[in-house]
Amino acid sequence: MERIRNEAIRAKVTTAQAAAAYIKNGMTVGASGFTSIGYPKAIPAELAKRAESGEDLGITLITGGNVGDQIDGVLARAGVLRRRYGYQNNKDLRALINADQVKYVDTHVSHVPYMIKNGYLGKIDVAILEVAGVDEEGRLISTLALGINDILAKYADKIILEVNDTVPEAVEGMHDVFTLERAPHTQVIPILRPNDRIGSPYIPCDPDKIVAVVRTNGLDANQNMKEPDADMEAIASHVLCFLKNEIKSGRLPAPLPPFQSGVGGVANAVLMGLAKSDLENLTVYTEVMQDAVVALIDAGKVNSACGTALTISPAAREAFYAKIDQYKGKIILRPQEISNAPEVIRRLSVIAMNTAIEVDLAGNVNSTHIGGVNIMNGLGGSADYTRNSGLSVFSTASTAKNGAISCIVPHVSHVDHTEHDTEIIVTEQGIADLRGLTAYERADVLIEKCAHPKFRPELREYIREARAKAKGFHGIL
Amino acid sequence: MERIRNEAIRAKVTTAQAAAAYIKNGMTVGASGFTSIGYPKAIPAELAKRAESGEDLGITLITGGNVGDQIDGVLARAGVLRRRYGYQNNKDLRALINADQVKYVDTHVSHVPYMIKNGYLGKIDVAILEVAGVDEEGRLISTLALGINDILAKYADKIILEVNDTVPEAVEGMHDVFTLERAPHTQVIPILRPNDRIGSPYIPCDPDKIVAVVRTNGLDANQNMKEPDADMEAIASHVLCFLKNEIKSGRLPAPLPPFQSGVGGVANAVLMGLAKSDLENLTVYTEVMQDAVVALIDAGKVNSACGTALTISPAAREAFYAKIDQYKGKIILRPQEISNAPEVIRRLSVIAMNTAIEVDLAGNVNSTHIGGVNIMNGLGGSADYTRNSGLSVFSTASTAKNGAISCIVPHVSHVDHTEHDTEIIVTEQGIADLRGLTAYERADVLIEKCAHPKFRPELREYIREARAKAKGFHGIL
Repeated sequence: MERIRNEAIRAKVTTAQAAAAYIKNGMTVGASGFTSIGYPKAIPAELAKRAESGEDLGITLITGGNVGDQIDGVLARAGVLRRRYGYQNNKDLRALINADQVKYVDTHVSHVPYMIKNGYLGKIDVAILEVAGVDEEGRLISTLALGINDILAKYADKIILEVNDTVPEAVEGMHDVFTLERAPHTQVIPILRPNDRIGSPYIPCDPDKIVAVVRTNGLDANQNMKEPDADMEAIASHVLCFLKNEIKSGRLPAPLPPFQSGVGGVANAVLMGLAKSDLENLTVYTEVMQDAVVALIDAGKVNSACGTALTISPAAREAFYAKIDQYKGKIILRPQEISNAPEVIRRLSVIAMNTAIEVDLAGNVNSTHIGGVNIMNGLGGSADYTRNSGLSVFSTASTAKNGAISCIVPHVSHVDHTEHDTEIIVTEQGIADLRGLTAYERADVLIEKCAHPKFRPELREYIREARAKAKGFHGIL
Repeated sequence: MERIRNEAIRAKVTTAQAAAAYIKNGMTVGASGFTSIGYPKAIPAELAKRAESGEDLGITLITGGNVGDQIDGVLARAGVLRRRYGYQNNKDLRALINADQVKYVDTHVSHVPYMIKNGYLGKIDVAILEVAGVDEEGRLISTLALGINDILAKYADKIILEVNDTVPEAVEGMHDVFTLERAPHTQVIPILRPNDRIGSPYIPCDPDKIVAVVRTNGLDANQNMKEPDADMEAIASHVLCFLKNEIKSGRLPAPLPPFQSGVGGVANAVLMGLAKSDLENLTVYTEVMQDAVVALIDAGKVNSACGTALTISPAAREAFYAKIDQYKGKIILRPQEISNAPEVIRRLSVIAMNTAIEVDLAGNVNSTHIGGVNIMNGLGGSADYTRNSGLSVFSTASTAKNGAISCIVPHVSHVDHTEHDTEIIVTEQGIADLRGLTAYERADVLIEKCAHPKFRPELREYIREARAKAKGFHGIL
């Protein structure tokens, strides 16, 4: 089928080079993409080419989530990136950020759309949106990453579309676009279950703002999932055991509230553990759905799931695309302003599961910085969920660097989640339930349940010293 | 008029001593009260008496907000408090907390009701609720502090009422009780404006759970407001100037979104500044409404305000009580689960204004701990608002201890609000707009705009050193 069903917009198809000409030195550019899928690929290459051939070309780039090397890497290496807003996880970009050569501002995923529409980041000169297609009325059909596409379509001055032929056309209808107006307008987000439809499958877009359309066929650069290792399996098993006990004690209902699950191996292992468990009627209200969510649906465990991106690993992609229709009605793709909305997260009592780089004895979590100095990736949506969840779980292996350092530390070198927001900490050693505990009590349970046995004596000694120096050590750690 | 209009409940009136007998060693007790108003006074005195006469009596006390010395002070000094959940600001209790003799857990105001109903803090054996009265059907009429009264009435095993004759009877009808069911139930909070009514003026309560009723007439122990000093006036003036400029730039709409304002002198000064300004049609969606909110209504600036407590200073109390009827429809008292709900705060794009103890050069805020060791009061609801607001403002004088120490520091000794959540920092020196800035940029603007001139050279030197050591200092501060 013709992907561009609107004639006026079809007439704007041009070359990537011609389209990229709309982007000039000093501009602020917004781009689609989330978890390294659905990001523009052709225009960034043209921009890099221009910079490499000597043009003075520097831009501010805003994305909703992390994007592939074809944009962050290509632009970083060509020196085109001057400022960068949004989550990122590109190796070359990170090096420039940590050398202060690219100005990077790490922002909650739910705040990015809010900041754009209120002008907190200045105006967006051009948005580059990869899309699956355009409908008869000129409305946009997103890829499997919706992110901030609705916000960019509405608030950018000019729009360039990359219509990518590798995106399955059957994605049409999986989106539920519901865009909140800015203040003083006030509006309920009427979601009561993860698969409630409250909007339209299409993104409205003023056709006059679309200045160019490029046809592309580059594949997304997201990676295959690694098989869970023994530590991940142990963490998943502790979490499952804990959840079952919570149901038994009456603190959590059965069926459980929806799960949010961070990206990566541990998250994947926990969800795969759920697929094999005897828990039934599970639901998912999350930022990114990965392979495990599809597995949970296939296993008959989940009938209602949503997120702002559905990121299938390359190995599983073809098989999934072939049967994508059977997931419609069960999986919904939402704008990130909705997937990460405090309103819905609290309303649904979401169980938030995220990963930590290190956890301190008071329960503060560092999830972004190595040694407090160098940023790893960014905060992502972890705090959107943690802060407003019904139950917040953080996991980490008890040690890093092949066991050389403890991930349970006296004092984290950077606080991303405060002691007031973390409830359950889990390592391969065990699980610490911090709810209702004082700072000293939290320290004890973290040492005895989560720290690696070889680091426990030192951590106990730290607490003994802290206690001797300052009787109520609230915060001294 | 008879305050207890239900006959069966009137028949349960007894002495404080007899009522207090329901509270036994080891129990968890919930109590009404917020900002030192609306808390029980007679039963705590009886408990203290028993402990002082040798009875082994220790309890866990949970409140929604801070309560007067007649409960926290009396019970702390008598050794009755073993554990304490919720915000507190009592001098004697604080000393015991910091000596680790009372186990204190500081919790977000919006989390307390959630934790109670989900059993995260164990079960509530007895709730002591100060009320204005009981209606014909046995439903409770709250004082001017609603707090967690609805949650305690629903989830406590037994209830003791203190019916206080000094609470104006005209408070009846000012409450809007809307209690969220626990998971798996999901429910919209349909508030679109601060004075939208969504519930009932009365708290439903199973009459069989009411084991005793005591008549009391003790006054609340809240304090008079201090007159704003020059620093507070300067801060208020910077905030006003900033807000007007935001409207001019289009980043904030006119009329402005609702204000949340922390408790205390600076908050009061800002609101009084608004009353004198040319800004119109202001609204208030906050935790605690103080004298200034009444002044704003009197000045014709505010027609729509709500909070979980309306705390009028003793000097203004009598005059306010005499004319309370004319505020009905303009002021609404809500359960703290609703006043502090992330859902409504984000929906209304609330402008959150809170105070800091110290702010670091990356923008992290400490609002609870002195020197990182001793807790001052607690977090209160500051993070409920900051984290979900449309704009978050923190204020502090630039120095403390008569100018001896800087409140703008390289690294805060305790993080309550992370760099990701703070947007505007204001001192008497000026205002720093941190939106969209990198860590280094934030440091520069905080030093040049907010720090006291005498501390600027040292702070600049710190940044120079940090930059030399670790080029991208993200988080090193």
